Amino acid sequence: MLIGSRREILGGIGALAIGSGVPGRAVAAPRKIGYAIVGLGSYATRQIMPNFAGCEHARLVALVSGTPAKLEQYGAEYGIPATHRYSYANYDRIRDNSDIDVVYVVLPNSLHAEYSIRAARAGKHVMCEKPMAISVAECEAMIAACREAGTKLMIGYRSRFEPYNRLAIDLARRAHVGPTRFITAEHGFPIKPGQWRLDRPLSGGGSMMDIGIYSLNAARYLAGEEPVEVTAVETTDRSDPRFKTVEDRLSFVLRFPSGIQATCLSSYSSAHNSYRVIGTQGWIDMEPATPYEGQSMRIRKDGVVAPRTLPASPKNQFAGQLDHLAECIIGNTTPIVSGAEGLADLRVIEAIYRSASEHRAVTINA
Amino acid sequence: MLIGSRREILGGIGALAIGSGVPGRAVAAPRKIGYAIVGLGSYATRQIMPNFAGCEHARLVALVSGTPAKLEQYGAEYGIPATHRYSYANYDRIRDNSDIDVVYVVLPNSLHAEYSIRAARAGKHVMCEKPMAISVAECEAMIAACREAGTKLMIGYRSRFEPYNRLAIDLARRAHVGPTRFITAEHGFPIKPGQWRLDRPLSGGGSMMDIGIYSLNAARYLAGEEPVEVTAVETTDRSDPRFKTVEDRLSFVLRFPSGIQATCLSSYSSAHNSYRVIGTQGWIDMEPATPYEGQSMRIRKDGVVAPRTLPASPKNQFAGQLDHLAECIIGNTTPIVSGAEGLADLRVIEAIYRSASEHRAVTINA
Repeated sequence: MLIGSRREILGGIGALAIGSGVPGRAVAAPRKIGYAIVGLGSYATRQIMPNFAGCEHARLVALVSGTPAKLEQYGAEYGIPATHRYSYANYDRIRDNSDIDVVYVVLPNSLHAEYSIRAARAGKHVMCEKPMAISVAECEAMIAACREAGTKLMIGYRSRFEPYNRLAIDLARRAHVGPTRFITAEHGFPIKPGQWRLDRPLSGGGSMMDIGIYSLNAARYLAGEEPVEVTAVETTDRSDPRFKTVEDRLSFVLRFPSGIQATCLSSYSSAHNSYRVIGTQGWIDMEPATPYEGQSMRIRKDGVVAPRTLPASPKNQFAGQLDHLAECIIGNTTPIVSGAEGLADLRVIEAIYRSASEHRAVTINA
Repeated sequence: MLIGSRREILGGIGALAIGSGVPGRAVAAPRKIGYAIVGLGSYATRQIMPNFAGCEHARLVALVSGTPAKLEQYGAEYGIPATHRYSYANYDRIRDNSDIDVVYVVLPNSLHAEYSIRAARAGKHVMCEKPMAISVAECEAMIAACREAGTKLMIGYRSRFEPYNRLAIDLARRAHVGPTRFITAEHGFPIKPGQWRLDRPLSGGGSMMDIGIYSLNAARYLAGEEPVEVTAVETTDRSDPRFKTVEDRLSFVLRFPSGIQATCLSSYSSAHNSYRVIGTQGWIDMEPATPYEGQSMRIRKDGVVAPRTLPASPKNQFAGQLDHLAECIIGNTTPIVSGAEGLADLRVIEAIYRSASEHRAVTINA
């Protein structure tokens, strides 16, 4: 589906908008945007798929997996008929399934580009997990493929749909604690052995690709500008069997045009989940900052520290993310976390690796 | 005073030690170690001088200042007779005053070396505020002068005499939250214009020399080893009238031999006072970490965060520091924060400035 069904959907949404304002007048519910999930690992099955239930505009319509038992299990659980279950062998046949509007790629990192590009070539919009890909070149190829196909491309930066993170961004933009001087951001966890994340051909890198990207992305969305230089330091114990092919720990400092410095950590051997925006008059602190749930914010202003709480949100970050791309398709707008956002992170990640390797500051070219 | 009076003091302390264990037996109180304070600025007059009252082995016996009104005011307040009040013109006459055992140098940074060396040449032990001096060469000259004179040299790292900081060091050494992987340390404050701290000829540098040294020193005492490499990033708005000659903000990452990375901040335009030791099983957090009073510790272990409190200490960090050098003189031992400690910080500070200037990692040679 592309032009034809988009018009059809817009009509449906229009009807809903009118209908909901006029009591007693029955209207047809708009058609929800149909998602195919590619890759039935734990993130897809535990975090994404259950959250279609909370979506207004998105629904799960198809599954893609190399494991027949998973297709059987989750197909039955979510009521996905056999006609909408695909293997990697017949993946390209999604082209012929008009129920599928979006392909959500939740595969290991090194497969993101290939499966996103094939989705675009099948005429489908693309949602791709972060990191968008394992190189700038792959990101650029994905963006080009979606542009040529006329499909949307969005990256799964779920924190942008989480209320506390949105509040932190808003407070930072409004200089609530004065103009920002520093950002600190830390993400890490002690990784267990035996995962594809520790296998470079699949992951494309270590903690930075997997969890450090949260520190990087937070630094960028909190600063509201693009870094121009990065300095990175890596520490990896190669005798640790987990780190034969990927890095463990990175510290990196981003320098932004306004003078903001962001000092960030990424780790596969210690637990971190926090950030802080430090302005001339105080700070905005989030710890934990980017979990699936349970964000906690404190603000220090004029010497006084106080917690800041928000009312419970009717829609969680996962449903918010799924609905956002659906709304972008319906309204023909660009996602707030498009391919350009994923590419921007990969540009910095490549510079981080280069800086750590060459022991010098590296300029980031946009 | 040197050998002779040291023996005399040892006798006195010995008598006290025996005496205090034998009720009813009267002994003479030991002679307390006499301090001359050089430089009557706010740190000396508000933090150091009032705290002799809490000392067991140290007393204030002399004052040195270029401002006669200050000598008059504080001389009267502390009962220091005119014979024990000195100007910079007659400073070297302290040699002839046998009440003075220690000269405590609390002058602007660029005067530390000169006044410490002159104190040593007058046969006096030296306590010198941090930063020890403004260059490695000056530190080495101070150490040599005290070695030649046979006098002690201690640097005013007060946090080493503060109970929460001592506990943090102990917990880190015992790997209470697992082996340390990262240390983060942040120190800064928005500086007001019109201070000697902003005048490079007096300060020798900006935030790093004044407040960032707390981040550096904490990283070193929490790691318990010496850094081998540093990477630093500086941001200074030279159009800000405060920062005509000195730096504002620095981020620096220290790499330690065991693999610990310490990411540190120093700022003259935002408020920070915290550190965190992150191990494989949790973290030890201090915020504030190094204030004059009011330290606050939290520990995260096995996923649970809890505050850690200590009973009130009978002796604060200022009295503890003053007594420590007195005890080292009495017992002829080396201070835990000797000239070697001050020199180690200056070695790293010089490397930080070089790294920030050259945009590359700099190896630190011990």
